[in-house]
Amino acid sequence: MSYAQKVKEHAAKSSDASDITTIEAARAEVAALKELFGNLNTSSAGVGRQSVTVDNYPRWFRKSDSRSCMTKEDYAKYCNIVGPRGYTFDQAIQCGIDTRSSTGMAIPDEESYHLWRGWYDKMIFQRHGFPAGAIHPCDLDYSKIDTSKVPKNLNDYCVSTRIRAARNISGFGMPPGTTRGERRAVEAIVKEGLATLTGELAGKYYSLTDMSKAEEDSLQADHFLFQKPNPSAMISGCGGCRDWPDARGIYHNKDKTFLVWVNEEDQMRIISMQPGGDVFQVFKRWVDAANAIAKVVSGKGMKFMTDPHAGMLSSCVSNLGTGLRASMHIKLPNIIKLLTQEGLESFCSKIRMACRGTGGEHTAAGSDGKVDISNNDRLGKSEVTLVQIMIDGVTKLINFEERIAAGEGAAVAKEMNAQTQIA
Amino acid sequence: MSYAQKVKEHAAKSSDASDITTIEAARAEVAALKELFGNLNTSSAGVGRQSVTVDNYPRWFRKSDSRSCMTKEDYAKYCNIVGPRGYTFDQAIQCGIDTRSSTGMAIPDEESYHLWRGWYDKMIFQRHGFPAGAIHPCDLDYSKIDTSKVPKNLNDYCVSTRIRAARNISGFGMPPGTTRGERRAVEAIVKEGLATLTGELAGKYYSLTDMSKAEEDSLQADHFLFQKPNPSAMISGCGGCRDWPDARGIYHNKDKTFLVWVNEEDQMRIISMQPGGDVFQVFKRWVDAANAIAKVVSGKGMKFMTDPHAGMLSSCVSNLGTGLRASMHIKLPNIIKLLTQEGLESFCSKIRMACRGTGGEHTAAGSDGKVDISNNDRLGKSEVTLVQIMIDGVTKLINFEERIAAGEGAAVAKEMNAQTQIA
Repeated sequence: MSYAQKVKEHAAKSSDASDITTIEAARAEVAALKELFGNLNTSSAGVGRQSVTVDNYPRWFRKSDSRSCMTKEDYAKYCNIVGPRGYTFDQAIQCGIDTRSSTGMAIPDEESYHLWRGWYDKMIFQRHGFPAGAIHPCDLDYSKIDTSKVPKNLNDYCVSTRIRAARNISGFGMPPGTTRGERRAVEAIVKEGLATLTGELAGKYYSLTDMSKAEEDSLQADHFLFQKPNPSAMISGCGGCRDWPDARGIYHNKDKTFLVWVNEEDQMRIISMQPGGDVFQVFKRWVDAANAIAKVVSGKGMKFMTDPHAGMLSSCVSNLGTGLRASMHIKLPNIIKLLTQEGLESFCSKIRMACRGTGGEHTAAGSDGKVDISNNDRLGKSEVTLVQIMIDGVTKLINFEERIAAGEGAAVAKEMNAQTQIA
Repeated sequence: MSYAQKVKEHAAKSSDASDITTIEAARAEVAALKELFGNLNTSSAGVGRQSVTVDNYPRWFRKSDSRSCMTKEDYAKYCNIVGPRGYTFDQAIQCGIDTRSSTGMAIPDEESYHLWRGWYDKMIFQRHGFPAGAIHPCDLDYSKIDTSKVPKNLNDYCVSTRIRAARNISGFGMPPGTTRGERRAVEAIVKEGLATLTGELAGKYYSLTDMSKAEEDSLQADHFLFQKPNPSAMISGCGGCRDWPDARGIYHNKDKTFLVWVNEEDQMRIISMQPGGDVFQVFKRWVDAANAIAKVVSGKGMKFMTDPHAGMLSSCVSNLGTGLRASMHIKLPNIIKLLTQEGLESFCSKIRMACRGTGGEHTAAGSDGKVDISNNDRLGKSEVTLVQIMIDGVTKLINFEERIAAGEGAAVAKEMNAQTQIA
């Protein structure tokens, strides 16, 4: 029986000492308690965490989903429910107090997702507008993508296209809650699995600890390699950067059009990217890679962490569901001149897109009007739907851009300002 | 009976299920286990931390006492012994992996000090050369201080004098392991207690959260107020800066010659300081303050965390024992010119003193040759002894400084270079 199963069984019982009537039952209860609390098996001291009370409730949250919807009652309900990695609810909310996390909450492992389910349901609704009990759809059939309306001269505007999503393997903690041993086991499994990929996906794994300075500098300069997250990032505030760079690394194919980040914010971030705007090719490669990795994982008798409601689990509530971000770096100087970057961002958010500078969140557009445009949703819509939203949005924006160049600025401004929020 | 007491009692027993022969004993054992593992009382899920194995051993430590003396056997022995605040041995060593801590180890609370005692004994010996079982002396009798040899013109050299030491109240976690509720309770107790002080010690408590920007800037400019420790500090790496600035603050008297830092690296840092070199007055004020605070604490039925071997407990192994640092900012331009700052530092370490720039560790002396000189030891010698070491060392250094000015540079250099390490 799995540990999670034992936990469920134990939860179903509510015996206390006075219920015990036979010596056999008593011995069984003592043995069960001692086994559940592994401390007792290995330590002569036999101590465990004591409960906290609602006195321990944070005095504030920084601006985040946690601040928007947490109550003392939520806290009281979950603050003493501790999963197998000993990671507490307090540790999970700490990033909402000490960092600039927009969610203000981590998911340390699959067990805690289930143990704190009521709270995550509430938070997911706050973040994604996705109601408790709703089933998240998954669709990786890239043949459904419609690129027929994309302008033929797309590459005059689009510099590059990128799709990424997270995957985590069931049975191991995610970065916030993982142990060192689990982190290394995940790295070994992923490294071994990726080594079996062939064709376009064939490549090599580079461990962050073994990488030469030259390799590291070159990968970072080209924006392929992740860096250690800064202390104000969510993943730092929830313990996800412990032991950095131990057991982190990057896999890429020869052309660097397919990459896997290992043990950064998630166990895996699968990335497909290339210059220009051929989103079909980028998405197809991403799906092929995700399927190939899933096959490798299932070949080892393992599976990804998934849930009917939350889809693919991730360290961050913002990345539940598909965890998919499809983005283009695209030049829209006329729109920005007409509406400012803020105006463009506002329009994008209404059509469920996100727009930012290519340096990341809260950065300015380049002097050539280059911005990063992506789908805004992650959960409740399928991968195919999200990529299509990105394609349609970009098509619309390029159309506006060209009309402004053709002297229709006033009409375009009116049209963009009149855009209402779509569902 | 206190929780710590219960832990000790439980540690003394090693019963397992098969030892139980009567129903009463069984019920008692079940009740004791359920009480110790508070999770069961408050959570319907009834889950607890599972054991980790030696696979979880860190791949490296940064340069620190932990790196110097930890073995996999030490780790295996303590990695699953968890105290009442759920703070793990892994959390305590994390600062040795991720930060520039010179110890590489935190002490989260009194219970964990006892639970991990074998390891702390080893580490204390590594850090302080103080063997397991040895009794730490305490002596606050300031009348024993001998300042008769201090040069009359001390203030020509000495800019200021400062003495500080840590105090933590038993029953509450120290900053690395404390809960939010405990941290606030400590703040309330300390604030209330300090408000009863009279005479020279009378002053006011300023909470970091309530302080005006002007008050904060003014206190920081004068080096009275602590700042949020940076992410590479030991206290950041062990969780001691969670919820910053909640429940932190500073008390000071009218002249700012007596200060108490609350919930920075320790629950309390008691500080006495003033311009010039009157170390007797500074030490007397410090002792009066420490005694007055002890009286307030005992008046509330509480006591400081102390141990016959480790003296006053502190978050940091480096501050065990007295936790006392007596320092002077003193101008020694001739010595630095003759021997370099490195040479001065080396000489100081041989006479059990520490020397650094006045900007803190690893900073350079001022252009006027101003350095910060302090006692180097904390544990195994009494407060009186440590202050006397500082006085005698400074007296010796000023003597050298004056002899160099009088043209005896060659003789002084020879003498200083010939200094051997004293015990």
